[in-house]
Amino acid sequence: MKKGEQTRAAILEQATEIATRVGLGGLSIGGLATETGLSKSGLFAHFGSKEALQVQALEAEAARFIDHVVRPALKAEPGEPRIRALFDRWLRWVNTGGKKGCLFVQSSAEFDDQPGAVRDALRVQQERWFAFLAEAGKRAATEAHFRSDLDADQFAFELHGQLLGFHHAHRMMRDPQAQARLTQAFERLLDSCRIPKEATDGAAP
Amino acid sequence: MKKGEQTRAAILEQATEIATRVGLGGLSIGGLATETGLSKSGLFAHFGSKEALQVQALEAEAARFIDHVVRPALKAEPGEPRIRALFDRWLRWVNTGGKKGCLFVQSSAEFDDQPGAVRDALRVQQERWFAFLAEAGKRAATEAHFRSDLDADQFAFELHGQLLGFHHAHRMMRDPQAQARLTQAFERLLDSCRIPKEATDGAAP
Repeated sequence: MKKGEQTRAAILEQATEIATRVGLGGLSIGGLATETGLSKSGLFAHFGSKEALQVQALEAEAARFIDHVVRPALKAEPGEPRIRALFDRWLRWVNTGGKKGCLFVQSSAEFDDQPGAVRDALRVQQERWFAFLAEAGKRAATEAHFRSDLDADQFAFELHGQLLGFHHAHRMMRDPQAQARLTQAFERLLDSCRIPKEATDGAAP
Repeated sequence: MKKGEQTRAAILEQATEIATRVGLGGLSIGGLATETGLSKSGLFAHFGSKEALQVQALEAEAARFIDHVVRPALKAEPGEPRIRALFDRWLRWVNTGGKKGCLFVQSSAEFDDQPGAVRDALRVQQERWFAFLAEAGKRAATEAHFRSDLDADQFAFELHGQLLGFHHAHRMMRDPQAQARLTQAFERLLDSCRIPKEATDGAAP
């Protein structure tokens, strides 16, 4: 990485930290200048506009999400082990190192009614995430960990809803039971995706 | 309702509309003055501060939520019918009349890391909502619609997660399948609350 890129990456890391704390809408070049001690004009030269800064902060965070959640999960065996790895990695993503929750969860609620480049970037990123979850479900069906007629998009929808429920219980409600509740919901979801009892019973000799 | 109260209620209705569109954090006395055409000094006299305006907008919205979701559901028979009424009313709450999503969902993601009166108000309001959902689950167990060993708080957690998943799919992703997916997830949750644990775990003959 060149010096300029390193500087940019370091600035974007602070930008995402600010965004996760006060909301992506609260991330501005002026505010970033105050928090980093860098000059406003220098930051303008780097990013051009508030919106471009917000989009680049999202992209930097998406790259980190891939490094911390997606790639490690792909190292697990396909099927249910990979889905469990995804789940564990996502939990670590939200919980690790004084992290203030997940920027994508927060920004989605914030920008869902604000058309523009930020919303577009968020939507594309999350379409990829949904596709990845659905693909993981499909693969679990191929591996015969899940039933063959699994609705993989429904699986992705329900798993994502549980993660949002956890994020809310953990970050907003400070519910000490949040993780235990999420785990229980997750196991129930996996159970419902496995081969139905009747089917295995029927196949038994 | 006195004239002053009517004025206040009308202003708060516009305030919640703005908050649902741009985020509660984006609701300010100055912005409200611009949108309503009322004087900033008059609005200051009404509300005193931005934070007080935000809290009062939340309280006004909570009162509407009770009128549109909670009270109608309480008219349904206790147990599963009441839970279905709650579910239907919540969906209408999010979908009706060009509504821009649910202010509580949006504001929770926005304020979960911003300590203060707004966050406190949100948390108390949503603790009541969770308690109401759990109580509805417990009552369904009493009515023998749900199994007697139901974990009502888990039921509330999972139902709420599904509503958040729907809100995200509908508002952020503009997924035309969002409501169908939510309904399927909801029916699966009800099924899991009905079927006694022994029946699903029961050893095959």
